[in-house]
Amino acid sequence: MNTALDKLRQLFSKYSGYPVIVAYSGGADSQVLLDLVCQILKEESRITQGTEEEKQQARVRDLLVCHIHHGISANADSWQQFAEQECERRGVALKVAKVSLALDSGESIEALAREARYQALTAASEKPVLILTGHHIDDQLETILLALKRGSGVKGLGAMASESDLAQHKLCRPLLSVSRSDIESYATKQRLDWVTDESNADSRYDRNFLRNEVIPSLTTRWPVFSQAAARSAELCQQNQQLVDELAAQDLASFDYEAGLAIEKLAKLSEARFNNLIRYFLSAKLTLPGGEAIQMPSQAQLQQLYQQLNVAEDKVPEVKLGNVWARRYKGQLFFTPSFADVSEFTAEIRVTDLASNAQTVELPDGLGKLVVTKLQVPDTVNNATKENGKPTSLVVAIPDSVNKLVIQFNHHNPKILPDYRAHSRSMKKVLQELNIAPWQRKRMPFVYANSEAGELELITIPDYFICQPFLPKAQGKKAVYLALEWQARA
Amino acid sequence: MNTALDKLRQLFSKYSGYPVIVAYSGGADSQVLLDLVCQILKEESRITQGTEEEKQQARVRDLLVCHIHHGISANADSWQQFAEQECERRGVALKVAKVSLALDSGESIEALAREARYQALTAASEKPVLILTGHHIDDQLETILLALKRGSGVKGLGAMASESDLAQHKLCRPLLSVSRSDIESYATKQRLDWVTDESNADSRYDRNFLRNEVIPSLTTRWPVFSQAAARSAELCQQNQQLVDELAAQDLASFDYEAGLAIEKLAKLSEARFNNLIRYFLSAKLTLPGGEAIQMPSQAQLQQLYQQLNVAEDKVPEVKLGNVWARRYKGQLFFTPSFADVSEFTAEIRVTDLASNAQTVELPDGLGKLVVTKLQVPDTVNNATKENGKPTSLVVAIPDSVNKLVIQFNHHNPKILPDYRAHSRSMKKVLQELNIAPWQRKRMPFVYANSEAGELELITIPDYFICQPFLPKAQGKKAVYLALEWQARA
Repeated sequence: MNTALDKLRQLFSKYSGYPVIVAYSGGADSQVLLDLVCQILKEESRITQGTEEEKQQARVRDLLVCHIHHGISANADSWQQFAEQECERRGVALKVAKVSLALDSGESIEALAREARYQALTAASEKPVLILTGHHIDDQLETILLALKRGSGVKGLGAMASESDLAQHKLCRPLLSVSRSDIESYATKQRLDWVTDESNADSRYDRNFLRNEVIPSLTTRWPVFSQAAARSAELCQQNQQLVDELAAQDLASFDYEAGLAIEKLAKLSEARFNNLIRYFLSAKLTLPGGEAIQMPSQAQLQQLYQQLNVAEDKVPEVKLGNVWARRYKGQLFFTPSFADVSEFTAEIRVTDLASNAQTVELPDGLGKLVVTKLQVPDTVNNATKENGKPTSLVVAIPDSVNKLVIQFNHHNPKILPDYRAHSRSMKKVLQELNIAPWQRKRMPFVYANSEAGELELITIPDYFICQPFLPKAQGKKAVYLALEWQARA
Repeated sequence: MNTALDKLRQLFSKYSGYPVIVAYSGGADSQVLLDLVCQILKEESRITQGTEEEKQQARVRDLLVCHIHHGISANADSWQQFAEQECERRGVALKVAKVSLALDSGESIEALAREARYQALTAASEKPVLILTGHHIDDQLETILLALKRGSGVKGLGAMASESDLAQHKLCRPLLSVSRSDIESYATKQRLDWVTDESNADSRYDRNFLRNEVIPSLTTRWPVFSQAAARSAELCQQNQQLVDELAAQDLASFDYEAGLAIEKLAKLSEARFNNLIRYFLSAKLTLPGGEAIQMPSQAQLQQLYQQLNVAEDKVPEVKLGNVWARRYKGQLFFTPSFADVSEFTAEIRVTDLASNAQTVELPDGLGKLVVTKLQVPDTVNNATKENGKPTSLVVAIPDSVNKLVIQFNHHNPKILPDYRAHSRSMKKVLQELNIAPWQRKRMPFVYANSEAGELELITIPDYFICQPFLPKAQGKKAVYLALEWQARA
């Protein structure tokens, strides 16, 4: 246990400004962890001699014990009680976080509980803290075997890191090189009580199955199997760090905000391409609403790689996990899955605009369109600007128009955008604006419903206004409208 | 089994010029492999239509079945008989390679047998061939778990490659994604006989222990565990390829023939340093006598990395596996372990040189020193040159000298090498020649035994001759000797 104490001392000195949160179930692992942490806090506070700096560091730092109440076991309340008693006995603060699991989500209960635990720990403090968990070397072996079971790559086989980032926090596992049996002997020797999760015996859970049925036979034959496997995991972590460095270096030669240049991608070896894409997806891409990015399968990456050299119109898109890789003008773009919004239609009656601004909620995370009738035509050219771009645009419609129709669909009319001298078909206009094909289906076309019941394009917000609807093209009798396309994800 | 057939067809087309060797034990795996290979050879020979090129490719290629007789099992002879019968039945050539294992070498019998198998396969043909083995996905899982048991890094966790190089050959494993049970069903369906190695049931062997005791419980719970783990292994292989690329790229900035510049090494991250050193050791360094290089442990690499920033004289050498990393003048060099040769001494009586050249065998792989008496002093300047360097050097000794003494030791005499204007102490001379400290102890000093019984340095072969012993410094009555330091490993 001295290794763990040394490790803890190192961590405390490395993160000397950090308050500490101990993830505490009340089981032997976290009980021993808490005991060690309390020992070191006592050491820190005991320094009465020494430099000012040493004394400064020695002040008892904030310690919070965080107990997660999953609400799965019938005993969960008594575990909470145990945590309360222990923390009272030790005189340390306890925070109980009750979480509820979306058991019908299709995820395993283990994955849900783990996810909920880390979320609760992350949320336990806004400012950066040092979060400590009691994971030990046998947990590590289980994690490695579970990664093999999933067919994970090197990142997964790297299992748990002894130090890592968790959002704004540092997540550290000072017991990661200690065995379960050493932890339990220590607990017994120190006369520590602990609770036992009865579900640990339930081999229906994958991790328990490994712990109860597989690992004992490995460690009976090879007593240092866990240590060896943990070394493998550490080597995998090192390796992952290297391939991340390589990917970052490869990616630096791309102007990836504007898509990844396919010509350059095709020059990479397949392994290096895969590595670059995985890194890009996990480190550089964000999905609307913070949706987690699923990593692509080998087969999906292979498909994408093979198709880099195929003519663009043959394979415009390839699915990768939960994103799509889409080609346009020699560049590869990554987008979430889009819903088909072509059937969407919304209307705004001009009369309704008299009193209030009207808002149209657009489908599939495309934000909303806010239309406001301007009372004074003089404000026409005064729409607030942000970074030189108007936040809303102003159009003028003849007072004969009775409603606006918003759709994502068009019948390729001839149109005359503000920036053009001559009219052109809509399709050609969208092409000349370099709007990627998938974007062309996801921008709201705002039509005027003419007297004859025909739809005439007024504007595509953020792109252009058709010349007949420019304020200057209309007389004083026109209706002036400000349009704003807001909050796209 | 169709996947395996397809894989084989691909291999045969990719390596169309290659004769095929099937590694054949007579067990179900290699029996099925041989059966599939024979099927494809029949297919190849059956093409009677098609282009000239297709017909060319279709000629029945050379097939050799290679059976290794390990001599371990009492049944080994009957397995050989079985191989002979099967090959006769199929009309294919058989080569039996009898190997004997150095059972007292401390290596496991499994490692020895594997090593011997691959050596025998490599030796089966001088020209490049396509070597096929019957390894399947369950073998792969065993290999992965054995790598974990050893604490291997990503290279080891990559287990077996489906295609790799074995010396001048291609080593391929077309059944690597097929399960053992599929192989046995195929064999049964095709009414193939096969032999069973009775030692497979013996769980004293690590691999058998995993096969018999551990893996069944994993695959009963997760029927696709082997497939998943094999995917992990493949991802590890890809990763290893990447970090090798990175190491090669990093190494390219070093002039490594002259040692690795420590200043540059110290700028690498620790993971990248480790990767560079491992790559350098496995891909760039050769040891005398072709001794295999053992990879360093994590702890050894860590020690070396930490000491990069330490003053040179503090840590001149660090052990890495079976080599030493040694520092000299800001460079890191890698050498095998050297024996202490300081006590070595050898003598050549000048009278013995009258009739024959004399050879002194130097210790610890340092080659030999050949001394020849030149009959005609005119040949003095005509020693054969190779690349501008004389292959032997000629010295002249007074006829009063009765013997030469060869040692690796010196008492720091003042000497006057041929290239110097003034004499200097031996230590300073060795320093000014930029000879690394460990080399200074491994170069033969050739002394003349003077009348007074004192040793006077004549030469350090390949470096310099002391001026009193230059041919021009001696009269016609001198004895002229050609010295050659040969065949250092």
